[in-house]
Amino acid sequence: MAENSILLAVLSLLSACQQSYFALQVGKARLKYKVMPPAVSGSPEFERIFRAQQNSLEFYPVFIITLWVAGWYFNQVFATCLGLVYIYARHRYFWGYSEAPKKRITGFRLSLGVLALLAVLGAVGITNSFLDEYLDLNIAKKLRHF
Amino acid sequence: MAENSILLAVLSLLSACQQSYFALQVGKARLKYKVMPPAVSGSPEFERIFRAQQNSLEFYPVFIITLWVAGWYFNQVFATCLGLVYIYARHRYFWGYSEAPKKRITGFRLSLGVLALLAVLGAVGITNSFLDEYLDLNIAKKLRHF
Amino acid sequence: MAENSILLAVLSLLSACQQSYFALQVGKARLKYKVMPPAVSGSPEFERIFRAQQNSLEFYPVFIITLWVAGWYFNQVFATCLGLVYIYARHRYFWGYSEAPKKRITGFRLSLGVLALLAVLGAVGITNSFLDEYLDLNIAKKLRHF
Repeated sequence: MAENSILLAVLSLLSACQQSYFALQVGKARLKYKVMPPAVSGSPEFERIFRAQQNSLEFYPVFIITLWVAGWYFNQVFATCLGLVYIYARHRYFWGYSEAPKKRITGFRLSLGVLALLAVLGAVGITNSFLDEYLDLNIAKKLRHF
Repeated sequence: MAENSILLAVLSLLSACQQSYFALQVGKARLKYKVMPPAVSGSPEFERIFRAQQNSLEFYPVFIITLWVAGWYFNQVFATCLGLVYIYARHRYFWGYSEAPKKRITGFRLSLGVLALLAVLGAVGITNSFLDEYLDLNIAKKLRHF
Repeated sequence: MAENSILLAVLSLLSACQQSYFALQVGKARLKYKVMPPAVSGSPEFERIFRAQQNSLEFYPVFIITLWVAGWYFNQVFATCLGLVYIYARHRYFWGYSEAPKKRITGFRLSLGVLALLAVLGAVGITNSFLDEYLDLNIAKKLRHF
């Protein structure tokens, strides 16, 4: 498994670095806008950056799960490319939101689209594995045969 | 591994959809109760839905870890069934909390019970694997022998 | 894989218990400082405990990912030892923060150091696997040879 998951591992590590980077930006914003811990409000600029990080965090486990399921059961390379698009979408979302709430929309929609696609590919891959294992019916092979 | 994890993958995908669904409900509640981003307070109805989603999110990594550990080291089918109960418990919790703080209790207790059970099963399975690997002592087999 | 991941599974289970423990402490603090759900502010003592748990939660997926990647591609035993240090660092961070914001710093820095080290080890291990697989060049073996 570890050999077949190497690209997924690279991407997971990359996205983990992005999450840490977002968290450090929140720390920086705390100092810049003088929001002392444990407070998380008081400055609209800080609140936008904080919400941007929180929202990225909320979708992070969903991203990791759909990435690995799509990578394991559908196609590792394809899932990894979609994962790169997701990281880019989150980058746009974060910096958009830090400027104005309206500027978060483009990145957010792109990230949701990638998540939906990863989930669908994962479901397709799992269904194919199920049919293959329990009904001895490999649709992917049959399609290639035609 | 990917073959022995197929039910766990299905359940992870399902629960990821549930988490996304909760997040979208928070977005809807934002519009309904006119809580403009980045604010997260101002309307008690919105705050309840927001806290319900946040709490589900807090326990989500714990759920995924205990699910996979119990599934890998104890029994995949049993862990998957418990996972389904957890998703149901979170569903009750979320919609209960969105009505009144008191109505969240039943679903919450059920979800904690499932998590505790998954953790115990995972620990039992890991202990058995340890004994098997390092002391050449397979308790599960011996029990079946008697 | 399940056999080569047993220590990582033990540590994941342990850290999941710690996260649940932090969440239960927040619940206790709610009762003690009379912060009724869904509110999350009103008492500085409660807010500190709540932020300590939230911050631990924010870094939890990053920890799990770097732990498994370092364990799979670098060395399982070494990654597990670092994981134990991380759990200890989070313990100090949580109880430090619950006393005063300043007392959270030592534990926080230690936890960040462990995360950075795990990420670097994971990247080293992945790079070595890549070279081994695609260029038939195993640096770890060559180093041992000299």
